[in-house]
Amino acid sequence: MAEKKKVKNASMTGAKKIALMGLGTVGSGVVELLALRKLPGIELTHIYNRNIAAKRAQKTKLKIADSVVWTESVDEVLRSDVDIVVELVGGLDPAGKWVKRALAAGKSVVTANKQLIAYEGRGLLQLAARSKAQLLYGAAVAGGVPVIPGVLQGIGGDAITQVSGILNGTCNFILSKMEAGAEYAEVLAEAQRLGYAEADPTADVDGYDARAKLVVLTRIALRAEIDVEKVATESIRRIAAIDFAYTREMGCTIRQISRAALDGSIVRARVAPMVVPKSMPIAGSHGTLNTVVTHGAFGGDVVFSGHGAGGHPTAVAVVSDILAVAQGLIHGGGGQVAQPVKRREVSGEVVAPHYLRFVVNDKPGIVSGIAGALAKNGINLDSILQHAGFSKDRLPFIATVEPCLNTTLMKAVRSISRMDSMLEAPLCLQILTAEDGDV
Amino acid sequence: MAEKKKVKNASMTGAKKIALMGLGTVGSGVVELLALRKLPGIELTHIYNRNIAAKRAQKTKLKIADSVVWTESVDEVLRSDVDIVVELVGGLDPAGKWVKRALAAGKSVVTANKQLIAYEGRGLLQLAARSKAQLLYGAAVAGGVPVIPGVLQGIGGDAITQVSGILNGTCNFILSKMEAGAEYAEVLAEAQRLGYAEADPTADVDGYDARAKLVVLTRIALRAEIDVEKVATESIRRIAAIDFAYTREMGCTIRQISRAALDGSIVRARVAPMVVPKSMPIAGSHGTLNTVVTHGAFGGDVVFSGHGAGGHPTAVAVVSDILAVAQGLIHGGGGQVAQPVKRREVSGEVVAPHYLRFVVNDKPGIVSGIAGALAKNGINLDSILQHAGFSKDRLPFIATVEPCLNTTLMKAVRSISRMDSMLEAPLCLQILTAEDGDV
Repeated sequence: MAEKKKVKNASMTGAKKIALMGLGTVGSGVVELLALRKLPGIELTHIYNRNIAAKRAQKTKLKIADSVVWTESVDEVLRSDVDIVVELVGGLDPAGKWVKRALAAGKSVVTANKQLIAYEGRGLLQLAARSKAQLLYGAAVAGGVPVIPGVLQGIGGDAITQVSGILNGTCNFILSKMEAGAEYAEVLAEAQRLGYAEADPTADVDGYDARAKLVVLTRIALRAEIDVEKVATESIRRIAAIDFAYTREMGCTIRQISRAALDGSIVRARVAPMVVPKSMPIAGSHGTLNTVVTHGAFGGDVVFSGHGAGGHPTAVAVVSDILAVAQGLIHGGGGQVAQPVKRREVSGEVVAPHYLRFVVNDKPGIVSGIAGALAKNGINLDSILQHAGFSKDRLPFIATVEPCLNTTLMKAVRSISRMDSMLEAPLCLQILTAEDGDV
Repeated sequence: MAEKKKVKNASMTGAKKIALMGLGTVGSGVVELLALRKLPGIELTHIYNRNIAAKRAQKTKLKIADSVVWTESVDEVLRSDVDIVVELVGGLDPAGKWVKRALAAGKSVVTANKQLIAYEGRGLLQLAARSKAQLLYGAAVAGGVPVIPGVLQGIGGDAITQVSGILNGTCNFILSKMEAGAEYAEVLAEAQRLGYAEADPTADVDGYDARAKLVVLTRIALRAEIDVEKVATESIRRIAAIDFAYTREMGCTIRQISRAALDGSIVRARVAPMVVPKSMPIAGSHGTLNTVVTHGAFGGDVVFSGHGAGGHPTAVAVVSDILAVAQGLIHGGGGQVAQPVKRREVSGEVVAPHYLRFVVNDKPGIVSGIAGALAKNGINLDSILQHAGFSKDRLPFIATVEPCLNTTLMKAVRSISRMDSMLEAPLCLQILTAEDGDV
């Protein structure tokens, strides 16, 4: 009987042929979701991965039709008659070259590659338009949260002046666990054990992952092209449990926040851990949730929230994009910003209140030294807070300062760092306020 | 000089010609936003309204080009060469006829008309497809919150099993004001003064507005066509300040919630005031905010939130849809559900814990009478709560019951209503729980 089973393939049904490049967590999720949904008009025909034989042996649980070609040759995929290349390899090179070759050959591309879209998205979208192919990248920002179609189509009519949010699930997992009392190193180890953080956590904790996503959001929401490497990022590595204890008393918590705002002809953009009042909805973003808030001059704030990372939510974004291309829902470039995008300078300067945490070998004159250095730079102290129970020779305490330019504050902080009693450089965090929008 | 001013019009620039039908709050917002954004490729050429001369005299502050035709003749608009008809008249008739005529003539339609899309959306979308015209209705659900493109394109790949949310800004305004201690009648009067509620508030407070939006969301998210009039709705009119006092002690508040969930081959759908734990994000939706939460089998919960009503946010949705049509971002029907939509039966039955509020002329045996009526129907009492300080002859107190079928509970409640000491029919509200999703 088996030999007589009728096998319909894409050429017979007119379905769009899909090549999957990269069968990791997200790629496997895409295969599972395609099997679950049995979407009409779509047929997986190629799977590319390095060491394809080992990968195939490892993924026997996935339901993959016998007709699918497993290959470790990129050329075989790009020379084939597939209609849509799903790029889940990641990184700028060689993934960028492959995406260009696919687009140049008139194949549409669906990608989750935030770095590629951040650095080269503009050129790739132009290439896609010239080739009459589609380039969709819904999975590149906030995984399963549909921010890109929401912003490009749903509120495309507004003049969006600001976009901000929690764009890195790993940092949010670490910081929301620390909020419950744990120290950075132990939570990072837990995140690594759970697969939420890489062995080398740099891209996540130092802000490079969130920065790439912020650059993509800036392009589509603020219609501004900014230089990725010029966006200031600050690491969350220096945040300690004591900072949550102190910010809790202020009615606040700490989150890695990515923000970009139009200010005249420039874009003010930063990725950094910031102090967030618990009254802001974004403070309630726990675990690996992602949240994006846009502010429109006309429509006000819009909030998108959901699971930003993980194989399944990201696979939803990828499959939704495949579907949009395959069903022709998208025309003229679904990932295109149809309105003019201007190249703009980016600045990390911001006027805001700040939180400062010092660790000192306590002796007389420390507070007056700090106050003096701040006053010399025209910065007003707002409050000083010191918990009991710490050793005098390694005493952490905090100060908050009234709104000031962060670069001026850094000058004062550098001079404070040189005080004899300072055991480490002060930690300095921006405090979000109601004027920063309803994030 | 004035005579020599060059006037470029749509025929010369190739811009899409727009007719605006209805120059009320939203229509005026659309005109303002078009003037603010100066969007390329779009030109307003016609404005239709009843009593157009009076309307024109009243709207002199709007920046409207001299070339725009002001008319009270629908025929003049529909016979003209406009490309896109923006229908902001509302209601099923005559707006529905006009939309059909426009689509049949090959004009695209952008509408904010939730009743029309709820009742006739399916047929209108088919008509649009046959005419190779677009029908977009982003403004019909949750105003400025981009739920429709987010769901249709952004998470179209997921198997969405449930959609719920706060879809009526008027009810949310009233209930969040009552949460702060006010009574229904005074808050309704305030909402009417502020223009948030109509002189006849029926459509809002009795749930018909939210019901239409829920039917549209059910079509696009659950891909199910349900009968509008078969969706059970309950009014918020009977909620009193005392209910907020009691639910506060339970760590909860009260909101008008619209929910639809796939359950086998049927859709369970209801619009009703419900008791919502304050730990759920939806409980933080204050004032006129709208919030929509989808639950996907694969990607989990996605939350959309923003200003659901008001001229400006709704105008953003309308202008975004105009732009999507004018720029050809949308192909094959942007408002179409590209995946098969099934007609399904709808049921208001639900198994859930409930909140019951009684007002009694206090005498012995009341609690045992209530407990007896519940027990007879197999329903377990969970708790009884009675605040001090009320007159014995008009005493409000509450009970909560363990999860039970709401129709069975209503049977018990009807028998309790017949008790001599009951001064009014008990109020009965579903209590949302964590199993109802992260709404």
